[in-house]
Amino acid sequence: MIVVNTKAYKEGIGRNAVEIAKVMKKVGEKHKVRMALAVQPSDIHAVSNIIETFCQHIDAIEYGSYTGWILPEAVKEAGAKGTLINHSEHLMKIEDIAKAIERAKEVGLEVIVCASNIAITRAIACLNPDCIAIEPPELIGGDISVTKAKPTVVKKAVDEVKKINDEIKVLCGAGIKNGMDVSKAVELGADGILVASGVVKARNKEEILEEMAMAIAHKKQST
Amino acid sequence: MIVVNTKAYKEGIGRNAVEIAKVMKKVGEKHKVRMALAVQPSDIHAVSNIIETFCQHIDAIEYGSYTGWILPEAVKEAGAKGTLINHSEHLMKIEDIAKAIERAKEVGLEVIVCASNIAITRAIACLNPDCIAIEPPELIGGDISVTKAKPTVVKKAVDEVKKINDEIKVLCGAGIKNGMDVSKAVELGADGILVASGVVKARNKEEILEEMAMAIAHKKQST
Amino acid sequence: MIVVNTKAYKEGIGRNAVEIAKVMKKVGEKHKVRMALAVQPSDIHAVSNIIETFCQHIDAIEYGSYTGWILPEAVKEAGAKGTLINHSEHLMKIEDIAKAIERAKEVGLEVIVCASNIAITRAIACLNPDCIAIEPPELIGGDISVTKAKPTVVKKAVDEVKKINDEIKVLCGAGIKNGMDVSKAVELGADGILVASGVVKARNKEEILEEMAMAIAHKKQST
Amino acid sequence: MIVVNTKAYKEGIGRNAVEIAKVMKKVGEKHKVRMALAVQPSDIHAVSNIIETFCQHIDAIEYGSYTGWILPEAVKEAGAKGTLINHSEHLMKIEDIAKAIERAKEVGLEVIVCASNIAITRAIACLNPDCIAIEPPELIGGDISVTKAKPTVVKKAVDEVKKINDEIKVLCGAGIKNGMDVSKAVELGADGILVASGVVKARNKEEILEEMAMAIAHKKQST
Repeated sequence: MIVVNTKAYKEGIGRNAVEIAKVMKKVGEKHKVRMALAVQPSDIHAVSNIIETFCQHIDAIEYGSYTGWILPEAVKEAGAKGTLINHSEHLMKIEDIAKAIERAKEVGLEVIVCASNIAITRAIACLNPDCIAIEPPELIGGDISVTKAKPTVVKKAVDEVKKINDEIKVLCGAGIKNGMDVSKAVELGADGILVASGVVKARNKEEILEEMAMAIAHKKQST
Repeated sequence: MIVVNTKAYKEGIGRNAVEIAKVMKKVGEKHKVRMALAVQPSDIHAVSNIIETFCQHIDAIEYGSYTGWILPEAVKEAGAKGTLINHSEHLMKIEDIAKAIERAKEVGLEVIVCASNIAITRAIACLNPDCIAIEPPELIGGDISVTKAKPTVVKKAVDEVKKINDEIKVLCGAGIKNGMDVSKAVELGADGILVASGVVKARNKEEILEEMAMAIAHKKQST
Repeated sequence: MIVVNTKAYKEGIGRNAVEIAKVMKKVGEKHKVRMALAVQPSDIHAVSNIIETFCQHIDAIEYGSYTGWILPEAVKEAGAKGTLINHSEHLMKIEDIAKAIERAKEVGLEVIVCASNIAITRAIACLNPDCIAIEPPELIGGDISVTKAKPTVVKKAVDEVKKINDEIKVLCGAGIKNGMDVSKAVELGADGILVASGVVKARNKEEILEEMAMAIAHKKQST
Repeated sequence: MIVVNTKAYKEGIGRNAVEIAKVMKKVGEKHKVRMALAVQPSDIHAVSNIIETFCQHIDAIEYGSYTGWILPEAVKEAGAKGTLINHSEHLMKIEDIAKAIERAKEVGLEVIVCASNIAITRAIACLNPDCIAIEPPELIGGDISVTKAKPTVVKKAVDEVKKINDEIKVLCGAGIKNGMDVSKAVELGADGILVASGVVKARNKEEILEEMAMAIAHKKQST
């Protein structure tokens, strides 16, 4: 599984998000690799007709007087299949993470919770999300991928999560730039990757996505 | 000007927001009264084809690594004409209010800043938003309208804002339920109203909106 | 162990905090029961000469440019032996809980992390604090103690924590009012209690503390 | 008036804060210049016996269930004469600034609100604090003082504040390092300065404070 996070990048907003979605659809179908695009809430509507869409965040709220907070039901009805939460750029209170996971499940949103290290990965695994994305924040947006800089962290995160609940999937992220990073991630036990600038700011997005998809497709065949 | 805020009300999300937009369009055109609907960011896309749309909040950010925060440019490209900020359910730091106003102007979003009392209304007027909505929080969602409970607050807010910058429009809100509340608001000097449950949770939304639009149209004629 | 939290109660500030400390010292020594008082940071200095003192919160910061945030080192040097964090009235981001636990250990502060339910208790246990206090927020400040309303929650919390790390102590709190509540807590496996209004707002603090101390002393003898 | 902010600097915590207080007392008395030290809440008790003491922050709360938040009454009873709020390292919601100012006045704490630019300075002046400290955040902790880098900002801030309420005092801060910076500040109309690293991290604190005090004493004589 490849999840592309557009953040608030110029290259990933509005029409640009739609363009990325189209490329992802094409590449994903070609290689039969699951791909999802995590966008700003205002872009869900346009993108979700093309590709599996995640919101970048939901708030731990239900229907009611919550002006300006992101309601899980609204995101779902706009077309999202899931959501990221607790990204290192949008950290949440532990009580809100627990509640947002519950709310996502009630509403039928797949929920990926980000974590920065192994202790926090274990803690979040106790809250039973669908998926955890481990991303050491010091590597996010950088040139060295987590799989190169901290391979043991990825491996250990996978092991620890599976020990607590082996139905929770594990993604890894931070600095992922090419097919080799993706191969390595899968080799270390990850179920996929979370990538942002590596795709969204790439000059040739299709090429990069091809590489990444092939890395995953190849691993799938070999198992 | 009548601004309807759907908050995170079940009656104002997704298809329900679209329904409200259609009624507002019909009534607004009939009475030649400006109407805008403030929605969840994920609903902007669907609603903005029908009626002037506001987002309920924007974050004080620019393009960049801001996963899960609401980017003014994204909201604008999705179709919003403006945004609320600093609603009493989503209060902001003063530095962020100043920056969000600037960002809204750069991007071309009309910005309505909410304020709870006269001192804060004056303070916000110094930050030069397009519009200030005064809403005493203790009256929000209640049965007594601000125009009945605190008419002098509305009048004073209008006077103080105009003293600081007479191009800033003033809305009033909290407990607004019917045409008489709207008439009174305009009489006290307000340029319009901000209303939520009074419309969104009304059984007959068209009837209420008709009443409110007529109150404004009538005032406009008499001036 | 009995931890009394003065919150921001009038009865627990300044000279009043000192008075409570004196009573606690007297009762604690008499019954040989460990007692600690969790106070506002500005009260640590005066109270810590009398009794073991906790701060009510620390921020996840180190030395540096953090005007107005509570520095662990400052709290320690003022005389605190430990600190509460993540009280339901002051919830923290999971990343900050992890960092505050680390900082407390570096500085030599014993750290009690509050949790509202069993899933969160487990998650926090993965972060290895010295102690977890389980307090269902809906019972805090109420008339029914957690040991009466939710005895299975207390028992389960203890079991789950010990499974993850049996060196972590478990307190229970919320609605604790008398010796029977304390007896029950210890019976359910708790290492002590966290109490606020039950002591701080009691007319006869000494009497209540006597009851509580005797309940603990009695349990200790019988084991 | 010279206000020294110890932030969370190692050189300004506990015994180090007491040492700075002693030097300030000596220099302040010698030159008959008002000096105040803004410290961590846990240091108020020890420092306030020596010199006029400010807290670095208070929360907008009253007596009640606010575990871990800084209560104005607690800070006052510990010995503080006043408090900073809304420092650029601890920004506050506009509603909380308004409430904290009110609370400070009720309790008898002099309140200095920080502001980063002229628009925000004007906005805060509308909330009637005792004093506003203008500190462009990009200059804080730097080598160029606000009086050198942005003299017109200081002058304009003073003028604008006095236009709104001429009883509000104005301090300036950011990069203040020596007597010349202080002279310039007073010349530009400021009632004093807010300084942190320039004093707290100085090798010879007494020398720097002497210079600053003389700059103020000299200006006072010449008027």
